[in-house]
Amino acid sequence: MWVFCNVKVRDCWAATSVTLRRCLKLGATMAKSKFEYVRNFEADDTCLAHCWVVVRLDGRNFHRFAEKHNFAKPNDSRALHLMTKCAQTVMKELEDIVIAYGQSDEYSFVFKRKSNWFKRRASKFMTHVASQFASSYVFYWRDYFEDQPLLYPPGFDGRVIVYPSNQTLKDYLSWRQADCHINNLYNTVFWALVQQSGLTPVQAQERLQGTLAADKNEILFSEFNINYNNEPLMYRKGTVLIWQKVGEVTTKEVKLPAEMEGKKMEMTRTRTKPVPLHCDIIGDAFWKEHPEILDEDS
Amino acid sequence: MWVFCNVKVRDCWAATSVTLRRCLKLGATMAKSKFEYVRNFEADDTCLAHCWVVVRLDGRNFHRFAEKHNFAKPNDSRALHLMTKCAQTVMKELEDIVIAYGQSDEYSFVFKRKSNWFKRRASKFMTHVASQFASSYVFYWRDYFEDQPLLYPPGFDGRVIVYPSNQTLKDYLSWRQADCHINNLYNTVFWALVQQSGLTPVQAQERLQGTLAADKNEILFSEFNINYNNEPLMYRKGTVLIWQKVGEVTTKEVKLPAEMEGKKMEMTRTRTKPVPLHCDIIGDAFWKEHPEILDEDS
Amino acid sequence: MWVFCNVKVRDCWAATSVTLRRCLKLGATMAKSKFEYVRNFEADDTCLAHCWVVVRLDGRNFHRFAEKHNFAKPNDSRALHLMTKCAQTVMKELEDIVIAYGQSDEYSFVFKRKSNWFKRRASKFMTHVASQFASSYVFYWRDYFEDQPLLYPPGFDGRVIVYPSNQTLKDYLSWRQADCHINNLYNTVFWALVQQSGLTPVQAQERLQGTLAADKNEILFSEFNINYNNEPLMYRKGTVLIWQKVGEVTTKEVKLPAEMEGKKMEMTRTRTKPVPLHCDIIGDAFWKEHPEILDEDS
Amino acid sequence: MWVFCNVKVRDCWAATSVTLRRCLKLGATMAKSKFEYVRNFEADDTCLAHCWVVVRLDGRNFHRFAEKHNFAKPNDSRALHLMTKCAQTVMKELEDIVIAYGQSDEYSFVFKRKSNWFKRRASKFMTHVASQFASSYVFYWRDYFEDQPLLYPPGFDGRVIVYPSNQTLKDYLSWRQADCHINNLYNTVFWALVQQSGLTPVQAQERLQGTLAADKNEILFSEFNINYNNEPLMYRKGTVLIWQKVGEVTTKEVKLPAEMEGKKMEMTRTRTKPVPLHCDIIGDAFWKEHPEILDEDS
Repeated sequence: MWVFCNVKVRDCWAATSVTLRRCLKLGATMAKSKFEYVRNFEADDTCLAHCWVVVRLDGRNFHRFAEKHNFAKPNDSRALHLMTKCAQTVMKELEDIVIAYGQSDEYSFVFKRKSNWFKRRASKFMTHVASQFASSYVFYWRDYFEDQPLLYPPGFDGRVIVYPSNQTLKDYLSWRQADCHINNLYNTVFWALVQQSGLTPVQAQERLQGTLAADKNEILFSEFNINYNNEPLMYRKGTVLIWQKVGEVTTKEVKLPAEMEGKKMEMTRTRTKPVPLHCDIIGDAFWKEHPEILDEDS
Repeated sequence: MWVFCNVKVRDCWAATSVTLRRCLKLGATMAKSKFEYVRNFEADDTCLAHCWVVVRLDGRNFHRFAEKHNFAKPNDSRALHLMTKCAQTVMKELEDIVIAYGQSDEYSFVFKRKSNWFKRRASKFMTHVASQFASSYVFYWRDYFEDQPLLYPPGFDGRVIVYPSNQTLKDYLSWRQADCHINNLYNTVFWALVQQSGLTPVQAQERLQGTLAADKNEILFSEFNINYNNEPLMYRKGTVLIWQKVGEVTTKEVKLPAEMEGKKMEMTRTRTKPVPLHCDIIGDAFWKEHPEILDEDS
Repeated sequence: MWVFCNVKVRDCWAATSVTLRRCLKLGATMAKSKFEYVRNFEADDTCLAHCWVVVRLDGRNFHRFAEKHNFAKPNDSRALHLMTKCAQTVMKELEDIVIAYGQSDEYSFVFKRKSNWFKRRASKFMTHVASQFASSYVFYWRDYFEDQPLLYPPGFDGRVIVYPSNQTLKDYLSWRQADCHINNLYNTVFWALVQQSGLTPVQAQERLQGTLAADKNEILFSEFNINYNNEPLMYRKGTVLIWQKVGEVTTKEVKLPAEMEGKKMEMTRTRTKPVPLHCDIIGDAFWKEHPEILDEDS
Repeated sequence: MWVFCNVKVRDCWAATSVTLRRCLKLGATMAKSKFEYVRNFEADDTCLAHCWVVVRLDGRNFHRFAEKHNFAKPNDSRALHLMTKCAQTVMKELEDIVIAYGQSDEYSFVFKRKSNWFKRRASKFMTHVASQFASSYVFYWRDYFEDQPLLYPPGFDGRVIVYPSNQTLKDYLSWRQADCHINNLYNTVFWALVQQSGLTPVQAQERLQGTLAADKNEILFSEFNINYNNEPLMYRKGTVLIWQKVGEVTTKEVKLPAEMEGKKMEMTRTRTKPVPLHCDIIGDAFWKEHPEILDEDS
């Protein structure tokens, strides 16, 4: 404990044990303030004002994670629904998220332009999202993978990207959805070749090398009788989460005037919830239908 | 799908459905590259080279979390051990962490000076730590809180701080340990007054207002017969995690020369593990005993 | 020179002086690469893409500078014109500046949204502006202060601010012009009280304490017969620099067909120059008149 | 002016011109505060605490500048001395610079580890240096280039680099001095070949392609009878500026006791000045001789 003492303790010599302890403990208090200069090393990481703040999470080593947990190929709907459940939890627990978009093992969250949550510190945005998402993933695992025990706790990495205009934000989300489309089309053919035609992964990869989207559609159609456009929307478009009003009938006891004593009042309470959609967000239609998402004053 | 098309599709008029699909899909591929400019908005957040990188996590709303899960006051050893289990998992799963220090609902992780993990990107450091810690918290909960179900998935916030010298790093860790000391002393007296003397929290707070460390020691000693220095070290000092060699005797079958056929070879394999200590890290003794922690060339 | 040598120089023993020198010099070359790791410490300071980049300069200790060089109070038109000359030089020498605004000892320069000059590095923007402005200040001094020698080289400080939208950029410029208005009104009254009514600076300051703009107008009008609105626009509004076409008749000898030999050709060449205006930029009128300034695609 | 008015001006209807003006001007004051939110867009650019802060300036287009002003090749001692004069001015005018190093058209300035000048804002460091250097360059030009008029005001670019340790700082300075050595050796041979052997620049370049330092020394010695080691130190080593005590005998009249009336007192005043050296700073000798430069507590 003496190490704390950075003040001269002249009068401790003949001190009683009480006074001595006082000297020592005083030192401890001093010590903390002596070390507090280390706070100055923290850098300011405020996100530029009036800009959209996007946090994107990616699963860490999810290739291995999917193997170990026997995920269905090319899409495991349990895994995708679990991802969406986690994203909904993030939207409900944190503040100011206006839209989220997820596909495969990634999810993007968009904080509103004028959010002042934690003074717009990038580190707060991304670590809150990453930790809430990750703890939810384990917490809700059993609801989606009943017979499949979780073998180890997964990790996610995150990043913050700042977009100054509605157009750049929409282009960001379009980029992710275009990525979903391209990867899913590829994976759908790849796994058809492997699972149904018995090709090895290497053979399947070689077969697809250099093919265009249309070639892949053609292979699916002619060889596997699959019309890619009839594949589930969730696989082809990913998942968009937006806040929507959900009417709920709640029975609640309210203090009523004397003459109505003993009666209950039935109330319809409207709540908003993060609702999943599997629609195109690259075209204008979606944004025209939901103008409130980008409306700066909302 | 047409929205993707940003190329003139002149020859599609009389095209067969196959060719038409090809045109459309080609558009999709084009589209992704059209959106890829949004990657330029990502800022570089490289941590200054040759500096210690510290990630500190703090539980989000852990006051409420502790209430809801009936944490013992002033310290819940189950909760502290769970925190340490999560920190050990983080150290094992991630790379280049040389020491960690935890107390209460916080944990600090120190990456080695010359780490080049994920090119020293601050966002990678902090989101990997935050997500791995949070998923581990839920994953290992049952091992520490057998009868106490986890009610909801907790969140953590994180930050990165960069320290240019051994001295500033040691001062950072000293700051956190001095904080542990001051808070724990306060909480120990506070809860003794509430739990044993029957004061209300407000009364206890008033009683302690303006008291020095020595006064608090005196109250503990004279009123509750508690010698603070005999309180558990884990409560008073927090938990330090460092890599230590752990000898393990492993019996392993090895291919042996013909004349030794049928025999087994017993091997002692040495592994390193993140081992918890509850010692002072403010004084020099700890650092002299473990010079490898700060040794730049390790 | 030996210090350079970080390679084993085995064969130098019996070497002639030539070979020896070769070894030594080889060491020197090696050495540079050995030190080049220090480049990694340079941080990336790219300005967010698609945003307006503003560099604002302020004179360093210009209160003292004005005293030493006998600047007229409250406005020295020579000094203001020199500032504008320097700003014009900056606009001509550097790239992508679309508008500049100056008042008193400050000047703001706006780089176009999609500028990629020096990869949008903040340090390049601000140091180029600061150094070009400062060297021009000394270079052109004599053109504005004929009888007044420059006593010492002045300094300026600079900063970069990034604005994500047209509205925020216009509000920035409005802020500077509102600042010009408020300061100039104050200074006009202050110096009238000092120069014409013989008040001391302290007395003038006390007289003005708590007065509103209207009070100051009233003092000017009733005591000094000055209608503030008739004061020179340059003082009240500051100086806006925008690119405007300037027609110039140039006589230039061009190689002509043989039958026209000996004749000169007169050409009208149109050039653009940074032209000073002293107009309101807070209202919409200015921006409607000059839509090309904010037009993203220009 | 009405544009300013963002308050209801109810009572202006029947107002006298004075009251009306008051309303309007009040609006103006309001307006400024309405715009002040734009300050929030300024980013914090504090340099990491306890680190060496280096500002390096480079001449902008100095190849062209040297041509236009007939600089001697390979070194123009007037130009080098002018650079050093400017660097000395920077050191005297600004605060906390402990050492500077210059060569060719560049100069590096090192601010002390614990400097808190302008709260360690990178933009302040670099723009003050850049502007003071640039204005000094024009101001002192005539002292070094008597017959050679300055044709236009030169520009410089600057950057800030942060070094966490003495070793990295020394390696930075070594890097610049190694660069000086390599370039100067090359240029010395190159211009000897051009000026004395009559090679064209392209021929000289081809002759030197692939040669090592020793080869260049050999060419200088055998073809031009130049021993490179006898070339001026300023060219080979660049210029180091450090603060050194300079004794000065000053005669100053001091108020003396009555009995000594009429006598003068001779005082020796010691001042420190930035003194140029042309020595090796790569080896340890320099740093051992001047321990105060890196001494953290100075």
